[in-house]
Amino acid sequence: MNFIDVMVKRRSVRAFDPNKMPDSSAIDEIIKAGTYAPCGRGRQSPIIIAITNKEVRDRLSELNAFYYGAKTDPFYGAPVVLAVLADRTIPTHLYDGSLVMGNLLNAACAVDLGSCWIHRCKEIFDSEEGKAMLAKWGIEGDYEGIGFCVVGYALSEPKAKERKDNYVTYVK
Amino acid sequence: MNFIDVMVKRRSVRAFDPNKMPDSSAIDEIIKAGTYAPCGRGRQSPIIIAITNKEVRDRLSELNAFYYGAKTDPFYGAPVVLAVLADRTIPTHLYDGSLVMGNLLNAACAVDLGSCWIHRCKEIFDSEEGKAMLAKWGIEGDYEGIGFCVVGYALSEPKAKERKDNYVTYVK
Repeated sequence: MNFIDVMVKRRSVRAFDPNKMPDSSAIDEIIKAGTYAPCGRGRQSPIIIAITNKEVRDRLSELNAFYYGAKTDPFYGAPVVLAVLADRTIPTHLYDGSLVMGNLLNAACAVDLGSCWIHRCKEIFDSEEGKAMLAKWGIEGDYEGIGFCVVGYALSEPKAKERKDNYVTYVK
Repeated sequence: MNFIDVMVKRRSVRAFDPNKMPDSSAIDEIIKAGTYAPCGRGRQSPIIIAITNKEVRDRLSELNAFYYGAKTDPFYGAPVVLAVLADRTIPTHLYDGSLVMGNLLNAACAVDLGSCWIHRCKEIFDSEEGKAMLAKWGIEGDYEGIGFCVVGYALSEPKAKERKDNYVTYVK
């Protein structure tokens, strides 16, 4: 499948097999793609936290559900959570972190895994508990949560909605 | 070349051949990839404006230089400018628009064209002149400029900087 076809095929997956952990080599490929995302002035403002520890993953899910006001697992059962944060002191950090998320989501599709962008990363890592997690993991600095890229084996294959009519305007 | 290798190979190009216009079929492939970028709740908040008209491209370059405080062409000679804007009334619009930019930048690399994210899209389309351009092009609504993806044939092939040591943390 060619490169652009992968991007067109990629969809947000919202049902994962919680008992099937992807190979670490596949996860490392996805992460590598994330680290090479473009960033403002090449300053590499983002960081990626790759969470496969079940206890930590489940606690992040609980916190996420709390901020979302949900009772179900906002990570949809995915066993891998890639948290992207970015250095708030760099003006382009929100754009930079989003591009890392985009590469992670596309790369997951390329290695035949499902993925989805989940929000509330900012709220969680701005909280005292989230800050304590970062400190425990040895992460120092003023980082803003951009998104959680959850990854796993998809239990269902969503289809793309039609693109809206007025998506593209040509000025020739 | 596999999908992830393209993402790793992609670099920001800052020198384009101004006299060599890419085929419209290549530009359309790039744009298609952009329209299939993920977006919050599938709401497709972004739009893409594909500018190949030289007069418009040059005026956008002048405005960009004005906001940047530069005297050179901030588009580095690129003949194609893909402006991405996103609907400000949708809370995820900045993330959504950034993901479109990411797909455009990666797709350009996949079809062997150079590209670069150029800022000041927000400032330009928030100005009276920018708003008049949008109106002239038939674009209605409250759109925020996210970025310009400039595209063309690269005159030089930049190399990637080393990734920073602390980009990735594993929580196993």
